[in-house]
Amino acid sequence: MSISRRDCLLGFGALLAGGAVSSIVDGGAKIVHAATPKRFEQVNGEFGWKPHKLDPKECAQVAYEGYWYKGYACGYGCFYSIIGVLGEKYGAPYNQFPFTMLEANKGGISDWGTICGALYGAAAAFALFWGRDERTPMVNELYRWYETTKLPIYNPGELAQGVKGEIPGNISNSVLCHISVSKWCHEHNIEATDKKRNERCGRLTADVSQKAVEIFNRKIEQGSNFKTAFPVQESVEYCGSCHQTQGTDSNWAKGVMDCTPCHSGSEATQNMFKNHP
Amino acid sequence: MSISRRDCLLGFGALLAGGAVSSIVDGGAKIVHAATPKRFEQVNGEFGWKPHKLDPKECAQVAYEGYWYKGYACGYGCFYSIIGVLGEKYGAPYNQFPFTMLEANKGGISDWGTICGALYGAAAAFALFWGRDERTPMVNELYRWYETTKLPIYNPGELAQGVKGEIPGNISNSVLCHISVSKWCHEHNIEATDKKRNERCGRLTADVSQKAVEIFNRKIEQGSNFKTAFPVQESVEYCGSCHQTQGTDSNWAKGVMDCTPCHSGSEATQNMFKNHP
Repeated sequence: MSISRRDCLLGFGALLAGGAVSSIVDGGAKIVHAATPKRFEQVNGEFGWKPHKLDPKECAQVAYEGYWYKGYACGYGCFYSIIGVLGEKYGAPYNQFPFTMLEANKGGISDWGTICGALYGAAAAFALFWGRDERTPMVNELYRWYETTKLPIYNPGELAQGVKGEIPGNISNSVLCHISVSKWCHEHNIEATDKKRNERCGRLTADVSQKAVEIFNRKIEQGSNFKTAFPVQESVEYCGSCHQTQGTDSNWAKGVMDCTPCHSGSEATQNMFKNHP
Repeated sequence: MSISRRDCLLGFGALLAGGAVSSIVDGGAKIVHAATPKRFEQVNGEFGWKPHKLDPKECAQVAYEGYWYKGYACGYGCFYSIIGVLGEKYGAPYNQFPFTMLEANKGGISDWGTICGALYGAAAAFALFWGRDERTPMVNELYRWYETTKLPIYNPGELAQGVKGEIPGNISNSVLCHISVSKWCHEHNIEATDKKRNERCGRLTADVSQKAVEIFNRKIEQGSNFKTAFPVQESVEYCGSCHQTQGTDSNWAKGVMDCTPCHSGSEATQNMFKNHP
C-alpha cells in the first residue's frame, strides 16, 4: 500500500468538496476539520453519487435482516439494503453514511404512523443519485405499486427472525404506516403488538427493497427515458380535476396519495367521538 | 500546518470506523476505499455524532434560506439548518453529509403529501445523535407543538424570497403535509399553487427549525432527564384505550398522530365520490 502525504490531502480534498483542510484535530477520536465551506456547498456535489446495479433478491434479504438488526426496523432496513450494500461492494462514499439516522423512520417516524419507513428509505436512497425531476417517476412507481399490491410477498423461510411460515397479506391503498398496518391488523384480526405484525413489516421491508432495486436498476439502464408504468390513481385524477387545478377556487389539495382511504365515507372515518359503531 | 502520514491514516481510520484503508483510488476525483466492513458496521458508531448547542434564531433564518435554495424546500431547509450549520461551525462529520438527500421530502416526499418535510428534517437530524428511547420525547415535543400551533410565525421581513409582508396562519392538527397545507389553503382561500403557499411553507420551515433547535439545546442540557411538555393528545388517549391496548381484539391502530382530522366525521371525510357536498 502506498499513500503519500499529497495523495492523502487530495483524498480529503475530494471528501470535502474541494474545501481546504485546515487542521487535523486530536481529541479522543481524530476528526478532520475543513475550512468553513460556503453555505449549502456539498461533498461530492448535489445528487452526486454514482449508482451501480444491485441484485434485488440479495437486497431484499439484507433489508429483512436490517429490519431486525437491533430493532432498527423498516427505514433502516430498506435504506441499508441499497446504500449499505453499495458500501459493502464499493466502499466510499456509500459506506460513510450514518445509517442509523434512518431508524427515525421506525413506526412511521418515532411511532407517529406517517410514511411507511421502508418507502422513505427507498426514496431517500434514490435522492442520493437523482434530483427531483429524475426521481419523482421512480418514487411514483414504487409508491403506487405499494398502494395496490397485496403485501407481504417475501418469505424468509428458515431465516425468519420473528415468526416462521405464512403471513397473510393485504392491499393497503395507502403509503401511510398507520393505514397500512391498521388495515392489515383489522382484516386479519391480529393485534398491532403481535410478533406476527413485526414479521409482516419485516417481510414488507424486503418487498419494498426488492421493488426499489428493480426500479433503481431500470433507472440506471434507461436514464431520463425512465417512465412509471402506473397511471395516476383514479381518485387523484377525479378529485384533482378541481382540487389540484390552477385557477379553480378549490385548488387546495396538496399530495398524490390515493384519496379513498380518508375521503370515501368509510366506516373508519365516521365520527368516532360521538357515534362510535 | 503539520500533517504526518500517520495522522492522515488515523484521520481516515476515524472516518471509516476503524476499518482498514485498503487503497486510495485515482479515478477523476480521488475517493477513499475501505476494506469491506462488517454488515451494519457504521462510521463514527451508531447515533455517534456529538451535539453542540446552536442559536435557534440563526438556524431559523438558515432554514428559510435553505427552503428557497434551488427549490430544495422544507426537508432540506430544516435539516441543513441544524446539521449544515454544525458543519459550518465544526467541520466533519457534519459537513460530510449529502444534504440534497433531504430534497426527497419536498411536498411530503416527492409531492405525495405525507409527513411535513420540515418535521422529518428535524427528526432525522435528532437521529444522528440519539437513539430511539432518547429521541422519541424530542420528536413528540416537536410534532405535538406543530399539531397545535398557529403557523407560520416567522417573518423574514425584507429578506422574504417569495412574498413580503404578513402571511396568515392556521392550526393544522396534523403533521401530514396534505392536511397541513390543504387546510391552510381552504381556510384562507389561497390556491396551493400560489406563491403565498410557498412562502407559508418557507416560513413554517423556519418555525420548525427554531423549535427543533430549542429542543436540541434543551436535550443537550438535560440529557436523559429531557421530558416532553405536551401530554398525549386527548383523541389518541380516547381511541388508544381500545385500539392501542394489548389484549383487546381491536388493538390494531398504529400511530400517535391526532386522530381527529380523519376520524371525527368532518365534512372532508364524507363520501366525496358519491355524495359530494
